[in-house]
Amino acid sequence: MTPDRADVVAAARRIHGRVHRTPVLTSRTLNALLGVELVFKCENLQRTGAFKMRGATNAVALLPDDVGTVATHSSGNHGAALALAAAESGRRAIIVVPRNARTSKRAAIERYGAEVVDCAPTLEAREAALTRIVDRTGAVFVPPYDHPGIIAGAGTATLELLEQCPGLDQVWVPVGGGGLAAGTAIAVDGAAEAVLAEPELARDAKDSLESGALRPALPPKTIADGLRTALGRLNFEILRRAGCRVHVASEASIKRWTARITEIMKIVVEPSAAVTVAAMAENPGISQGRVGVILSGGNCGP
Amino acid sequence: MTPDRADVVAAARRIHGRVHRTPVLTSRTLNALLGVELVFKCENLQRTGAFKMRGATNAVALLPDDVGTVATHSSGNHGAALALAAAESGRRAIIVVPRNARTSKRAAIERYGAEVVDCAPTLEAREAALTRIVDRTGAVFVPPYDHPGIIAGAGTATLELLEQCPGLDQVWVPVGGGGLAAGTAIAVDGAAEAVLAEPELARDAKDSLESGALRPALPPKTIADGLRTALGRLNFEILRRAGCRVHVASEASIKRWTARITEIMKIVVEPSAAVTVAAMAENPGISQGRVGVILSGGNCGP
Repeated sequence: MTPDRADVVAAARRIHGRVHRTPVLTSRTLNALLGVELVFKCENLQRTGAFKMRGATNAVALLPDDVGTVATHSSGNHGAALALAAAESGRRAIIVVPRNARTSKRAAIERYGAEVVDCAPTLEAREAALTRIVDRTGAVFVPPYDHPGIIAGAGTATLELLEQCPGLDQVWVPVGGGGLAAGTAIAVDGAAEAVLAEPELARDAKDSLESGALRPALPPKTIADGLRTALGRLNFEILRRAGCRVHVASEASIKRWTARITEIMKIVVEPSAAVTVAAMAENPGISQGRVGVILSGGNCGP
Repeated sequence: MTPDRADVVAAARRIHGRVHRTPVLTSRTLNALLGVELVFKCENLQRTGAFKMRGATNAVALLPDDVGTVATHSSGNHGAALALAAAESGRRAIIVVPRNARTSKRAAIERYGAEVVDCAPTLEAREAALTRIVDRTGAVFVPPYDHPGIIAGAGTATLELLEQCPGLDQVWVPVGGGGLAAGTAIAVDGAAEAVLAEPELARDAKDSLESGALRPALPPKTIADGLRTALGRLNFEILRRAGCRVHVASEASIKRWTARITEIMKIVVEPSAAVTVAAMAENPGISQGRVGVILSGGNCGP
């Protein structure tokens, strides 16, 4: 069940035309500030405003035709992506959303036509609510990250970046549940190094990979709300085998670089997407050569 | 001295590598809201945050080698673009900036290494200050729009868009001084219709083109601060000969679409860049077929 590079290539073919081929942007100002040559893959400009549309579209396309309803739990971007992917394939979507999720992310899920079910802001409450829905409706659960189709779909962002910019030395991605991270570790296939970044306040991926044992999530305190979840089990195994390094960023640095990326590049990024640049800025010298950065999403509050 | 399509093609070659080849983005959400198929050329993601970098780079590249200093008056984007283009060619830049210009635009001019000279917020004061500088320093005046090199450079945005998206029926651009508008009217060369948009509060281009006589600027009241200037004489002649239509947008519509473009597309646009979409929304049916839109800039206040 562990996806490989052929699965990422197949996913790219499968979702072609249903997701944007997002642009790659560069900024000499940011290069000068960070002392490295950066190439930004703008998944914040992806449909639904995040790379999550890739995994959701791939996972939905892999479902048997007789599956009429999908369900998931999500604080935002995966929920919106699954809502739109389901709607476009003529399926119903039911999304369990914790009550502390951002209003704008909840509104997006509803705008794409999904039913929203509230729950308490804990993983246990999310999973209990989801189990009830699956039992009652027969919906197929499409998880946010711990799933081969989601990982392969997420990896297409990096596959595309490497096509658009051959010869990158590193590809930096934020790591939360690890869908984008695992997909990237698979997609680079030794041609570039996949480097991960996460908030210091949500450093379960760093601790898990450095200790070799999967750790639970830390209390959800970081502003980077897309990275509060624990690393998934399949994701952990893929990242452990790939030997990926994880660097952390402080909250102050995440906030600063979220604002600076928008100010300099004129694109909206959510804090989760700025964690990579924030970690580079705090650890001079760790990013080297020609460096790709996946800007994971742009769904900020109003 | 009137530039033609060969001048735009030559400008594109001349500025290649010195300006970004900006991406083209689409949004099914915006298409559905406006009832037309839109293709956005993102000059808000251009270097210095505006299409102005194209004309400034072209005009500076056309200067004789012995010109050591350039000067202009600008409330913002042209000043920043000329500052950077001059710095990169090893020249000094002096920019006359009206005291009511946005702080962020003034800061950008200084960040790119130019000297800023304050003046009162009238065209007369700008021109008087500029004359004094030219007399004192021997600087060459690079005007913001009423100049063949600036017009040809601005036209490269549309030339590039037509390469990236062949078969467009219309290309919509905002019109202020008319550099982008005239460059677009030349670049489309009959293959697509160049359609102009301006604020109702700054409708001098519409009145000028419809009456056949160049009108002065209206009081600078529109939020679209890049479009407050009067249409240039050379620009007027080019647009009159091309028979371009001008549509207007209300302030409420400009504000609404500035916010909605950012919310939906995750890119920052300044009000002047949203005037095209605002005019389309207020005049259903005037945009037809496959419609290109040049998003002219993204330099908003903080």
